[in-house]
Amino acid sequence: MALQADQDSRARLLEAAVSAFGQQGFHATTTRDIATAAGMSPAALYVHHRSKEELLFLISHEGHLASLEIIRTAKASSTRPTEQLRAVMHSFTAWHAQKHTLARVVNYELGALDPEHLAQIQELRRTMETEIRDLISAGVERGEFQVPDVRLAAASLLSLGVDVGRWYRDGGRWTPEELGASYADVALRIVGAPPAHR
Amino acid sequence: MALQADQDSRARLLEAAVSAFGQQGFHATTTRDIATAAGMSPAALYVHHRSKEELLFLISHEGHLASLEIIRTAKASSTRPTEQLRAVMHSFTAWHAQKHTLARVVNYELGALDPEHLAQIQELRRTMETEIRDLISAGVERGEFQVPDVRLAAASLLSLGVDVGRWYRDGGRWTPEELGASYADVALRIVGAPPAHR
Repeated sequence: MALQADQDSRARLLEAAVSAFGQQGFHATTTRDIATAAGMSPAALYVHHRSKEELLFLISHEGHLASLEIIRTAKASSTRPTEQLRAVMHSFTAWHAQKHTLARVVNYELGALDPEHLAQIQELRRTMETEIRDLISAGVERGEFQVPDVRLAAASLLSLGVDVGRWYRDGGRWTPEELGASYADVALRIVGAPPAHR
Repeated sequence: MALQADQDSRARLLEAAVSAFGQQGFHATTTRDIATAAGMSPAALYVHHRSKEELLFLISHEGHLASLEIIRTAKASSTRPTEQLRAVMHSFTAWHAQKHTLARVVNYELGALDPEHLAQIQELRRTMETEIRDLISAGVERGEFQVPDVRLAAASLLSLGVDVGRWYRDGGRWTPEELGASYADVALRIVGAPPAHR
């Protein structure tokens, strides 16, 4: 029971931190803001986390692991690059729309991380880029895609997904699923998949 | 002469503010940081600008006017939508790469603006969106483009350009002009311009 209460407190703190960082940015948020939003004293926060930066790192680490997992799961749903890319872009985009506050914190506060924490996150980001590049290269090799520059195509796909976290608003014109489906079509256009196959 | 010195001070303050906001974010920057970087006293800053928020608004307003001007100038370079879009995406992307620090401040600190300042900036953003949507619609009408959703295509093009400010690094793999040329090709793919015309 003590362990469960502990886990609940940690989860509450992470949630409060995502919301505070998302609203005011990391630098303008105090540990007191986070503790108060989680219904705790600042002292209680330090029982669970050493610093505000550690909270940011945990959020960033979990967020990046989640996106990487989304990419890998979607990729595993088919053996055809066209279908793989459709699934990857759909899920990756829908996730960034659904979790737009988390996505903003995860992508726009990297500069606030300690160097060794940043290095771990950069490694996850490189792994995500490699997943997308390998997928595009496989599509090119099998004649399904036509791109002048695999690296640039991969950068543009990730960029479209990440930027959804900046502009997406709940209750706007597109639901996360609708945006995911449309961006899957955009992705297939970018890699030059012939219209008949899309 | 006094007027010239005044203009120089203002320009120096704006430059110092862009750099400080770009590095630490608006909320974590003090007016003292900006004044010091511009070689002035905090009191001297207030001779020129009423507040830190006013500086942010001036930067944001100038930045948005500059992007809008870039879009309009590029559009005016041709009467064919395909050529117009190529020119618009090239310049818009290259500008965001070249001025990536300014672009970040302009696009990621909107939440720090006063409501009436924000309304002015939102109006400029809507005008930019309309320019891009009208261009895509003209291409569709003339049979040069094929898109399932003009609004979504426009959102994705602007998104790709804006996000360059987040990830672009000086001295990286692509110069601003190279990225501009490649993203012009990506844009024509997104709007479904046939390969022969690209």
